Amino acid sequence: MYAPATVVTPPLVNEVDIVIPTIRNLDFLEQWRPFFQPYHLIIVQDGDPSIKIRVPEGYDYELYNRNDINRILGPKASCISFKDGACRCFGFLVSKKKYIFTIDDDCFVAKDPSGKEINALAQHIHNLSTPATPFFFNTLYDPYREGADFVRGYPFSLREGVTTAISHGLWLNIPDYDAPTQLVKPRERNTRYVDAVMTIPKGTLFPMCAMNLAFDRELIGPAMYFGLMGHGHPISRYDDMWAGWCAKVTCDHLGLGVKTGLPYLSHSKASNPFVNLQKEFKGLFWQEDIIPFFQNVTLPKECTTAQKCYIELSKLVKEKLVSIDPYFEKLSDAMVTWIDAWNEFNQSADGATTVKVKPTKPK
Amino acid sequence: MYAPATVVTPPLVNEVDIVIPTIRNLDFLEQWRPFFQPYHLIIVQDGDPSIKIRVPEGYDYELYNRNDINRILGPKASCISFKDGACRCFGFLVSKKKYIFTIDDDCFVAKDPSGKEINALAQHIHNLSTPATPFFFNTLYDPYREGADFVRGYPFSLREGVTTAISHGLWLNIPDYDAPTQLVKPRERNTRYVDAVMTIPKGTLFPMCAMNLAFDRELIGPAMYFGLMGHGHPISRYDDMWAGWCAKVTCDHLGLGVKTGLPYLSHSKASNPFVNLQKEFKGLFWQEDIIPFFQNVTLPKECTTAQKCYIELSKLVKEKLVSIDPYFEKLSDAMVTWIDAWNEFNQSADGATTVKVKPTKPK
Repeated sequence: MYAPATVVTPPLVNEVDIVIPTIRNLDFLEQWRPFFQPYHLIIVQDGDPSIKIRVPEGYDYELYNRNDINRILGPKASCISFKDGACRCFGFLVSKKKYIFTIDDDCFVAKDPSGKEINALAQHIHNLSTPATPFFFNTLYDPYREGADFVRGYPFSLREGVTTAISHGLWLNIPDYDAPTQLVKPRERNTRYVDAVMTIPKGTLFPMCAMNLAFDRELIGPAMYFGLMGHGHPISRYDDMWAGWCAKVTCDHLGLGVKTGLPYLSHSKASNPFVNLQKEFKGLFWQEDIIPFFQNVTLPKECTTAQKCYIELSKLVKEKLVSIDPYFEKLSDAMVTWIDAWNEFNQSADGATTVKVKPTKPK
Repeated sequence: MYAPATVVTPPLVNEVDIVIPTIRNLDFLEQWRPFFQPYHLIIVQDGDPSIKIRVPEGYDYELYNRNDINRILGPKASCISFKDGACRCFGFLVSKKKYIFTIDDDCFVAKDPSGKEINALAQHIHNLSTPATPFFFNTLYDPYREGADFVRGYPFSLREGVTTAISHGLWLNIPDYDAPTQLVKPRERNTRYVDAVMTIPKGTLFPMCAMNLAFDRELIGPAMYFGLMGHGHPISRYDDMWAGWCAKVTCDHLGLGVKTGLPYLSHSKASNPFVNLQKEFKGLFWQEDIIPFFQNVTLPKECTTAQKCYIELSKLVKEKLVSIDPYFEKLSDAMVTWIDAWNEFNQSADGATTVKVKPTKPK
C-alpha cells in the first residue's frame, strides 16, 4: 500500500473530467491520488454490470455500467461498444467539462530523468492551454515552452499559433506496440525520455493511443467517438486509432492543433499478444485502405463544427469504405447515432437545454 | 590549447566531405580533431582572398577562395555569393563524395546529458544511412533506433520507409534565432537536450539551418544551392532557408526523407543582432510570401531528379516571386546557372566525364 500522499494543487480542477474505462487495478487510483483526487472521475465499466468496481475513499466519481448506458441512451446505446475499452467514449458524451483526460488502469505515475514524479494531467492541461503550430515545423519543438522560441526562418504571421484541441501523451516501460511487434520484440521496453512536446503538422496522420490522452471536449469531443469494437464486431484495439484518424482530419479542417510528446506515464503491463492479434488482425490489413482514405479526405467548408465534420465523415465512410467490409456500413450508421446522442446530451449551438444524466453511483 | 585527442574510428570516411565556410576560429578544428581529422575538408573562404586561413597540422583539406571560384567556374561564378557564408555551396558542387557535412566555425563539440562528447558527424551518417518515414507520424520518434519501433496503428506498408536525403542537427547554448528574437531575448540559451530524431512529414516545410547539416549530395545536392546573398544583394542570412525550402519540396516530390533532431553541437557565439537585422530584414517580410509559394508548389512528374526539380523551381520562382522584388529574377537565373555548373562538375546521367578542379592548396 502507499503512504498517504500530498495532494498537489491542480490546474483547472472544475474544467476537467478524468475518464477511465473500468478499473481492475486497485493500486491505480492510490498511486495517482496526489494528482487525480481533486478531479472528478467518470468510470465507464466495459463488461459484466454485476461486477463491482472498487474506488478508493476520497475520490469524487460517477460510474456507468452497461445497464446505465442502455437506460440513459435508449436505442442510441447501440453506438457504444460493449465488453471493450471503446465504451469510454460514453464518458466523453456525458461529461459537462471543457477538458477530458482519459487513461487506462494499467498506467502509473512515471518519473522524469531527475527522479521527480510526473504530473501527467498538469502537463496535458498545459499543452491544451498553449497554442499549437500545425502549419510550419519548429525545429526547437514547442516554441511556447520556457527557454524555447520560434527559430530563425519561422514566419512571423504564424507565431500566434492555433488553439490546441488534442494532447497525446506517451509511455515509458511497455510501449504501445501491435501484436506482431509484441511477438517479435517481447522484451522491448521504452526507456527513452524525450523531453519534447510538438505539434503534429497539418495533413499528417498519427496513431492516436488512448492510454494517455487529453482533449478539449467542447472543440473536438464529437469526433472522439471510439467506434464499434469488441463484442459483436469483427475488430477491436482500433477504437483509439479510429478516433485519432477522424479527430485529426477534423482538427486539420477546423484549424485546430494536435500535440504529442510529454507527458509520459509508466505503462505497466503488456497485454497478451495472441489475444491482441485476434482482436486486431482485421485492422492490420484494413488500415492499409482506411489510412489512405483519411489522408485524402477533404471536408466542405460548410463543416464549421466537429459535429458537422463528423456527419460528413460518416457519409464518406459509407461511400468509400463499405467496399472493404460491410462492417463499415454499421460503423457509418453508428457515427450518426453518436452525433445524435452527443447533440442530445450537450448544449447545442442554439442554446437548447441538454439532458441531465444519473449515474449508478451519484457523486 | 587542447591535449592531443584520440581520433575515433569514423563511419564512411571515404564517402563524406566536411564543408566549412571560412575558418576564423583557431580552436575550431582543434576541438573537433578527434571526430573530423579522418575526413577530408573543403574550406570555402567567404571574403578577402588575401587573408590566409590557418588550418592545423594533420588535416587533409582543400581551400577555395574567391579567385579560385572565379577561375574554376568562369562566368558561372556569378551564382556563388561573395563575402557571405552562402559561398559554402561551392564546396557541395566540387565535392566528389556521396555525403556532405557542413558546419560553422563557431560551433563546437557538445556533451550529451551523461557528459559524453557527441560525435555529431557519426550521428548524421547514422541518420542518413537509415530510412525516414515522411508519410505517417511515429509517436515514439525514429522507429529504426535501438529500443524503438513503429507503434500500434502504424501501417505495415509504410514501415520500410524511404531513403533519407537530409539530416538537420540542432544546437545547444545559443539558439538559432532571428534578429528580432535575439533582441527580445538576449540571454536565452538552449539547455534542453531532446533525445530524438524525427522525420519531418511530407508536405511540411521547416527552417533549415546550415550550422549543423548533413545531406546526401548525390540525391539532393543540386537543390542545396545557397542563393545570392550578402555583397551586392539586398538580403543575407536566408541562404540556408532558401536551400531548405527548395530541398524540402524536392525531397517531398522525389519521395526522399528529411530528418531533424540529434545530433546537437554547441553554438558558441550569438552574432550581432543589429547587423543581423540589417542583413535579414527583407527576408523577414518576403518570407511571408515565399513560404506560401513553396507550400503550394507542385512539380510535374517528369521531374525525376533533383536537377530537373530545381530547373522547374527556377521557372516557378521567375513566374511567381518576381512580383515581390526584381531580386527574384536574378535569383531565378542564378538557379539555372547553378544547375549548369553542377552538371558540368558532376557525373551526368549519361556517364560523361566531369571536370576536375584544382584548389589553392591541394591536399
